[in-house]
Amino acid sequence: GLVIGVPRERAPRERRVAATPETVARYLKRGFRVIVEQEAGLAAGFPDEEYRQAGAEIVAEPGDLYRRASVIIKVQRPLPEEIEFLQPGHVIIAFLQPLIAPELVAVLAERGVVAVSMDTIPRITRAQPMDALSSMSTVAGYKAVLLAANELPKFFPLMMTAAGTIRPAKVLVLGAGVAGLQAIATARRLGALVEAFDTRPVVKEQVESLGAKFLELDVTTEEVGGYAKELAEEHLRREQELIHRHCLEADVVITTALVPGRRAPLLVRETTVREMRPRSVIVDLAAEMGGNCELTVPGETVVRYGVTIMGPLNLPSEMAYTASQMYARNVATLLEHLAPKGEFVWNLEDEITRGVVLTKDGTILHGPTLERLKEIKEEVR
Amino acid sequence: GLVIGVPRERAPRERRVAATPETVARYLKRGFRVIVEQEAGLAAGFPDEEYRQAGAEIVAEPGDLYRRASVIIKVQRPLPEEIEFLQPGHVIIAFLQPLIAPELVAVLAERGVVAVSMDTIPRITRAQPMDALSSMSTVAGYKAVLLAANELPKFFPLMMTAAGTIRPAKVLVLGAGVAGLQAIATARRLGALVEAFDTRPVVKEQVESLGAKFLELDVTTEEVGGYAKELAEEHLRREQELIHRHCLEADVVITTALVPGRRAPLLVRETTVREMRPRSVIVDLAAEMGGNCELTVPGETVVRYGVTIMGPLNLPSEMAYTASQMYARNVATLLEHLAPKGEFVWNLEDEITRGVVLTKDGTILHGPTLERLKEIKEEVR
Repeated sequence: GLVIGVPRERAPRERRVAATPETVARYLKRGFRVIVEQEAGLAAGFPDEEYRQAGAEIVAEPGDLYRRASVIIKVQRPLPEEIEFLQPGHVIIAFLQPLIAPELVAVLAERGVVAVSMDTIPRITRAQPMDALSSMSTVAGYKAVLLAANELPKFFPLMMTAAGTIRPAKVLVLGAGVAGLQAIATARRLGALVEAFDTRPVVKEQVESLGAKFLELDVTTEEVGGYAKELAEEHLRREQELIHRHCLEADVVITTALVPGRRAPLLVRETTVREMRPRSVIVDLAAEMGGNCELTVPGETVVRYGVTIMGPLNLPSEMAYTASQMYARNVATLLEHLAPKGEFVWNLEDEITRGVVLTKDGTILHGPTLERLKEIKEEVR
Repeated sequence: GLVIGVPRERAPRERRVAATPETVARYLKRGFRVIVEQEAGLAAGFPDEEYRQAGAEIVAEPGDLYRRASVIIKVQRPLPEEIEFLQPGHVIIAFLQPLIAPELVAVLAERGVVAVSMDTIPRITRAQPMDALSSMSTVAGYKAVLLAANELPKFFPLMMTAAGTIRPAKVLVLGAGVAGLQAIATARRLGALVEAFDTRPVVKEQVESLGAKFLELDVTTEEVGGYAKELAEEHLRREQELIHRHCLEADVVITTALVPGRRAPLLVRETTVREMRPRSVIVDLAAEMGGNCELTVPGETVVRYGVTIMGPLNLPSEMAYTASQMYARNVATLLEHLAPKGEFVWNLEDEITRGVVLTKDGTILHGPTLERLKEIKEEVR
């Protein structure tokens, strides 16, 4: 059967791991063997001992691991020193981000590696148990609320105390995708009053079922691959106005709006921040893609006009235990899909396989990556 | 009528304020006047403008404030430069901590100041709306859970996701006083499984009504002034055993055990921490009094044997908005009790008045403070 290798992540501040003792046991039951690099799960809260008990072999040297494993499962895309270990025929599964790092895909093709990307899984129902982007968004949405609640000098819940009633905090969530919905649910758990806005009116029901108020703008847009299409000028103006007005009443604003492969839309302007309550908090989950707030500094927490603006990067890594648990299950489900009887069946007729296999036999197979590489070539010219 | 002065707190890292726009309005209705030092409430989230709208006068110079006000309301006990401003006849209301800083009380008596302490309010039913220690414990208990949830790399709630079920975090709360009960309530809100231990079996019902499991030891102790009496040797051993066992299963341990005027009891030993899960979190709310965990470093977050141990100091200051709101109401209720018709009535027959008035007319009136000063004199001899 296949030998799965789980290296320790070497990217800075990355604490997640691509397999947990739970998925190791699951692989073994399927007839796979698993080799885990020493301390690969430690930062996420999974000590070597637990992997060993689950049936994995622990190895000290990554070189050893890559030599013996035929499938490498990782979180982050490989660093240059990790690419060196990859040999023809190796299968690597990770967040390869082909649209952000298309050159890496070309390198992997050249090396004769089969590159499988966890972030290009099609957003179809039967792929949901493999949908690692959704898993990580769930984690980010939860964590964003904790960051905000920890920063806000105010209680989230309504409290009836001997010293009288304390009114609940007001939370505004912009964007009701997976991260936004989880942020709404978590803020509601903590007892805040929650309002949410999304350009897609179809999410209204979901927002309301979580106990939040859905802010309405009489504008409609179509959906493109589950994401919101960019809005026309006039719509934008009215959206800005609505957001501005509700930001001024909020104690916490959590922004989650992303457009795939593009800069995140600007939703909260400096003119809005300037008028917000002092000591209110903005958590910008789009910081990695430039931010939804004009004053966000990616990777930092800044105070502007008395408002704390947090632009966290890689929040799932800060929730490494749960994030690894979910990611490892996503990887295991995909692996089992690609190798249902213990060996890989590269069935490119299958929508999921076609979505995730970026390179094979020295060739780039993934359409959007090829397009992106062509775009870059043209830009250079 | 009385003129109330609200200076800006000058102690390092103190963000609270003794009056909010709400209590300013309340004082004015009672016929008091209120002077607030510039930016006194800013760090807590109350800008000058809101005090002005409530009817306060804003002054730039603290000297000015002390000269014109007859009652000074504060959070922290006065620093040397603030003591300089106090004149005979001034009434000062603050957390004076007479058992920790008895020399200050002697100084205040010498200066002919009436010293009123917010932390010696008797724990009787009719004094509850003034009970600032309870208010601050409520804040600390809430904040402790947020610190823990923010540090733990795991979700608190049970989650049913496309990637399967995520089990809820396990939280152990040691000590079920006001802070402990609030910690239990907050951890439950966030969806954790909560266990709690307290040496007083009477709190069992309260713990269970919050949805937590009460850990039982067949040991009983009497209550002394609402606090737990120190336990005898044998009881301690069995208590340690119970705590040890449940710590090993916990993701988060929150400790809240205090004995008034004494070092906090050691509940979580190094031998326990050594065996706890890696990446689990201890928040020690007794850090200020030496800590309930043997490895706590007051004011710091340390990692020992893979366990994160937080020893926060002055948590209420980090929740300055809500903490100020509650504290300001406690102060206002006490002030209205001491001066029901706009002028002070120093009725020492009244249990509350007798509890809070430390000095008057150049004399220390407060029994426990006098005893503490006598003890110190004897120690010096």
